[in-house]
Amino acid sequence: MPHLVILYTPNLDKPVADGGIDMSALCRALCDAMLSVRDEQDRQVFPTGGTRVLAYPAAHYAVSDGGAAGEAAGLGGDYAFVYMNVRMGQGRSAVVHRRVGETLNACVHEWFGAQFRCRPIGVTVQIDEGHEVFDAKNSSLHPLFNKT
Amino acid sequence: MPHLVILYTPNLDKPVADGGIDMSALCRALCDAMLSVRDEQDRQVFPTGGTRVLAYPAAHYAVSDGGAAGEAAGLGGDYAFVYMNVRMGQGRSAVVHRRVGETLNACVHEWFGAQFRCRPIGVTVQIDEGHEVFDAKNSSLHPLFNKT
Amino acid sequence: MPHLVILYTPNLDKPVADGGIDMSALCRALCDAMLSVRDEQDRQVFPTGGTRVLAYPAAHYAVSDGGAAGEAAGLGGDYAFVYMNVRMGQGRSAVVHRRVGETLNACVHEWFGAQFRCRPIGVTVQIDEGHEVFDAKNSSLHPLFNKT
Repeated sequence: MPHLVILYTPNLDKPVADGGIDMSALCRALCDAMLSVRDEQDRQVFPTGGTRVLAYPAAHYAVSDGGAAGEAAGLGGDYAFVYMNVRMGQGRSAVVHRRVGETLNACVHEWFGAQFRCRPIGVTVQIDEGHEVFDAKNSSLHPLFNKT
Repeated sequence: MPHLVILYTPNLDKPVADGGIDMSALCRALCDAMLSVRDEQDRQVFPTGGTRVLAYPAAHYAVSDGGAAGEAAGLGGDYAFVYMNVRMGQGRSAVVHRRVGETLNACVHEWFGAQFRCRPIGVTVQIDEGHEVFDAKNSSLHPLFNKT
Repeated sequence: MPHLVILYTPNLDKPVADGGIDMSALCRALCDAMLSVRDEQDRQVFPTGGTRVLAYPAAHYAVSDGGAAGEAAGLGGDYAFVYMNVRMGQGRSAVVHRRVGETLNACVHEWFGAQFRCRPIGVTVQIDEGHEVFDAKNSSLHPLFNKT
């Protein structure tokens, strides 16, 4: 933990010049954003070896009214949607939650600004605290960063 | 919010004539079904600009005993499974939850009736209330429908 | 219910000889592992007709620092990550939760042992209890196993 899972409409998987988003680069930017967040004691919130972003275009989808209102408004009916969900461990402060969320949402504004201006699109960022009843972490990644 | 995410076995991604489901059309039908639900005051429960359905066939899967019991029963061992999960905001009444669930499940009965009769398949519909600790919604879709 | 959903980096979808994992076989092994778990009264915990595993490689992803630390350590920068999440019904004992989790994690150790030794990789197993506000299960699979 933590991880960020992105579910999105596949009409965003196009070259940027054609109105798409470079999702691989966005994943990297969001991962870097998560790693940049610091808590009230100025410590890095998320361990470097345990932070990851996974993005999934849907194979099939339906959004809103299917396009009629966008067509009527002259914005086109090719609606897009992106859902970003962070799952992080329990016990962090509300301040940390807000910092993480606002950091990710700043990324959204930077990366989706042109999209918001020219097409109907929704981008949601939510953070959940996990409430798992069992948790096992196996990692050969963490040791790369925990060399104290 | 809300959204409906569908996780399913890829053996359903075939032409309907070959025993598959038209998942794109099903997404549209489920989205329309969600938009049709009304609360106790006869107001639309889900905002048109914020309702979406995303469907994901698994790349790899295993279901139940892998096929032996279905083969033995003469129904074939090509089991299928569909998991439909709605995430909606907190604070709706139990009546609304039931209306949403029953509306979606009526869609399931309509679309999967032939499947239930001729193959081993499970279709589950569940609704979760989100308990997010951070929530940011960015949208150029909502304004198309909020023109009061 | 229950189901196990696996989200993972697509760099594991290679032949085993090339450093990959046979994900279809792993799904089967994890499904069998779930079916093998027994409760305090020695009853099978999960119904055979309701147990399933679905695995999803991400289309785009970012893990940790992107590879620099692994390269520097001579382990390579091709980090992998696997997230396994079980969702099961409420009301099971802590003993059952632990048995399910440990059974799945034993599978992880068996299947990913070589990975842990030779590359930076994280594999997390978590179990959630569902807290759904609506639940409808439709199945022509269960009757194959409930013939009492």
